[in-house]
Amino acid sequence: MAKKTLVGNMLIAQSGGPTAVINQSLVGAVIEAKKHKEIRNIYGSLHGIQGILNEEFINLGRESKGTLEDVANTPSSALGSVRKKPTPEDCQAIFSVLQKYNVRYFFYIGGNDSAETTHIINEEAKKANYDFRCFHICKTVDNDLLENDHTPGFGSAAKFVAMAFMGDNLDNRALPGVKINIIMGRHAGFLTAASALARVHDGDGPHLIYLPERPFDTDRFAKDVQKTYKKYGRCVVAVSEGISDKDGTAIAAKFSKEVDSHGNVQLSGTGALGDLLASEIKAKTDIKRVRADTFGYLQRSFPAIASENDAKEARAVGTLAVRYSVKKHKSGSVAIRRKPGRKYQVFFKRVPLKNVAKETRHMPKEYINKAGNDVTKAFIDYAAPIVGKLPKIGRFKGRAVKKVK
Amino acid sequence: MAKKTLVGNMLIAQSGGPTAVINQSLVGAVIEAKKHKEIRNIYGSLHGIQGILNEEFINLGRESKGTLEDVANTPSSALGSVRKKPTPEDCQAIFSVLQKYNVRYFFYIGGNDSAETTHIINEEAKKANYDFRCFHICKTVDNDLLENDHTPGFGSAAKFVAMAFMGDNLDNRALPGVKINIIMGRHAGFLTAASALARVHDGDGPHLIYLPERPFDTDRFAKDVQKTYKKYGRCVVAVSEGISDKDGTAIAAKFSKEVDSHGNVQLSGTGALGDLLASEIKAKTDIKRVRADTFGYLQRSFPAIASENDAKEARAVGTLAVRYSVKKHKSGSVAIRRKPGRKYQVFFKRVPLKNVAKETRHMPKEYINKAGNDVTKAFIDYAAPIVGKLPKIGRFKGRAVKKVK
Repeated sequence: MAKKTLVGNMLIAQSGGPTAVINQSLVGAVIEAKKHKEIRNIYGSLHGIQGILNEEFINLGRESKGTLEDVANTPSSALGSVRKKPTPEDCQAIFSVLQKYNVRYFFYIGGNDSAETTHIINEEAKKANYDFRCFHICKTVDNDLLENDHTPGFGSAAKFVAMAFMGDNLDNRALPGVKINIIMGRHAGFLTAASALARVHDGDGPHLIYLPERPFDTDRFAKDVQKTYKKYGRCVVAVSEGISDKDGTAIAAKFSKEVDSHGNVQLSGTGALGDLLASEIKAKTDIKRVRADTFGYLQRSFPAIASENDAKEARAVGTLAVRYSVKKHKSGSVAIRRKPGRKYQVFFKRVPLKNVAKETRHMPKEYINKAGNDVTKAFIDYAAPIVGKLPKIGRFKGRAVKKVK
Repeated sequence: MAKKTLVGNMLIAQSGGPTAVINQSLVGAVIEAKKHKEIRNIYGSLHGIQGILNEEFINLGRESKGTLEDVANTPSSALGSVRKKPTPEDCQAIFSVLQKYNVRYFFYIGGNDSAETTHIINEEAKKANYDFRCFHICKTVDNDLLENDHTPGFGSAAKFVAMAFMGDNLDNRALPGVKINIIMGRHAGFLTAASALARVHDGDGPHLIYLPERPFDTDRFAKDVQKTYKKYGRCVVAVSEGISDKDGTAIAAKFSKEVDSHGNVQLSGTGALGDLLASEIKAKTDIKRVRADTFGYLQRSFPAIASENDAKEARAVGTLAVRYSVKKHKSGSVAIRRKPGRKYQVFFKRVPLKNVAKETRHMPKEYINKAGNDVTKAFIDYAAPIVGKLPKIGRFKGRAVKKVK
């Protein structure tokens, strides 16, 4: 417990892939910080730790309440983001900057890579005997952070995916064929799985769901599609960009040579995987109309359709990180947990930084069907309240007119 | 003028690519038809003229008011669609079905290809001396129908495109690089041009817009991108799927062999064009982060974000087609016209079927800038009221913190 009052400036930054609600966390932290006299200036670093190294800060304490709320409701990282793993030299440089600006409260909003960065910075601070508060604020559309029931950003991205599939299922119903949609998710299939929430009426797609948690076999895939097509006269497929073969090699990695400083291969921002899978179906079946779309960056940054629960929880983790840092803890990450029971209720818990760093979690076994090409009801029960209300989809009763002889 | 009362059944069908509001037209027609005693049964044909040939009809007169309204607010063709140009033999078969079911009121909702089909059916009916009413009800996200100021479906698709660019521009601002987005539009650039509505703050993308109305040159494209990147440190590009080289060959056609019965090459449902353009930028500039997304079918069938004016007008053209057919005219298409003046006001006008069939219109010269890589203010003024209200995008004032020496 950090009982001693620590007075100084605050620095907050955003990292990794943007989300629709990452600014809720930022604004939650800024508004909370304004309430504590221990925190003097509130600085925002532009483009994560890169902005610290370059000493590019903006004064968030001087933003109006109106601007703060407008930004909170705007998708994508308002401070700019970065994909950079600091070297030991970077960390030394970061500390000299933190000391120079008398930064005593540091908050880094991001996923597991960012938690690792935050952890490294905190460890270096301890070594340097520099007294400060260091918090990670969770976000990721992948929903793959350890210690969390789910992560801010996932609910809104999942809502986009579900809505997109609602529309696309109807598009495919109008002009039947095979439609393959590629969804974000490097190692965890949560976002791809959320496509299942689009099912409302009998026969609605997605009819098949392929996740990175199960080895992907193209022959098996073609057989699944052929079988579904025979049954429904059409087939809508949800495929995670991270699907890998039995040896663990990402199918999409065959097309991409780009690797970031965390060792991640570029999967998004290309339609290659969808086109490959479409050509496999064309080659291995007699189905003529085969189309593929890659949802790409739209799913993480689309405005105005954020999940209400997601927005609320994203705000809360930002608020609580600051509150904990002033009142309770020297460091940590604010995790979202769910209370048992039918009614959806969450609570928040500080966990050690190292617990969310590096490692990620995957879809639990009970969320994936035995054949590995769909999700279970347990997943639907898990995901539905996080995503929240979806649009109403009407369908005609469609009483057939008796044929005239 | 059709003064003589014609009593019989009604048949309505949908054709071509779905839109977010095509069911508004369908439901508008059904609700209006229920008011006229001349119209007995109200049949819906499944999958356009294919459903007529197969005699697959549903009884729309028996759908409840609640279901009708739910379907009206649901995207994509609720009766199913088709891409089929009827042969003279098909037309003979169609007439014998129409006569068999005593269909005297026929409505076909679609684009210019569907108007052509409606026109052919009407001409065949005249030849056969079959007394009936034959109307085309316009729709197309491409906004390329002659006689119309704009077409139902365009406003909602344009709103999706504008919203997607609002989010994607912020995503690109957070993680700078070059981002290329491919948008629907075979010959007309209206939908791609609507990306310009995403610009709110200084420096917002799209920074470049390429339309099918201007020859596309990859060297020129790479130079434009490099120049923009130098200025803003990033570049968001809107590209129409229909862009063609100076000889009129679609760039995307190089990757596609599929052709439908109207002679159209498949452009959508593949990420190939975006990936090609991204690799051109990587090869011709020194920019490292280059990404491409293809909006695909999402832009025409995304639920719950339809433009209000678009939904209202789509309902109106369906309603009026039926009203005209009973009270005033034997055939035609209901066109949307705009009243001159500052305030956005439309009116509707029956035009002959042949006027909207076959030919399409393109972006007027005054909507495209001289360099052929952006739109003009005249286009923004034209498109903004059709699209309607867009989400508010917040941005920090971003007062720089003075560097400590």
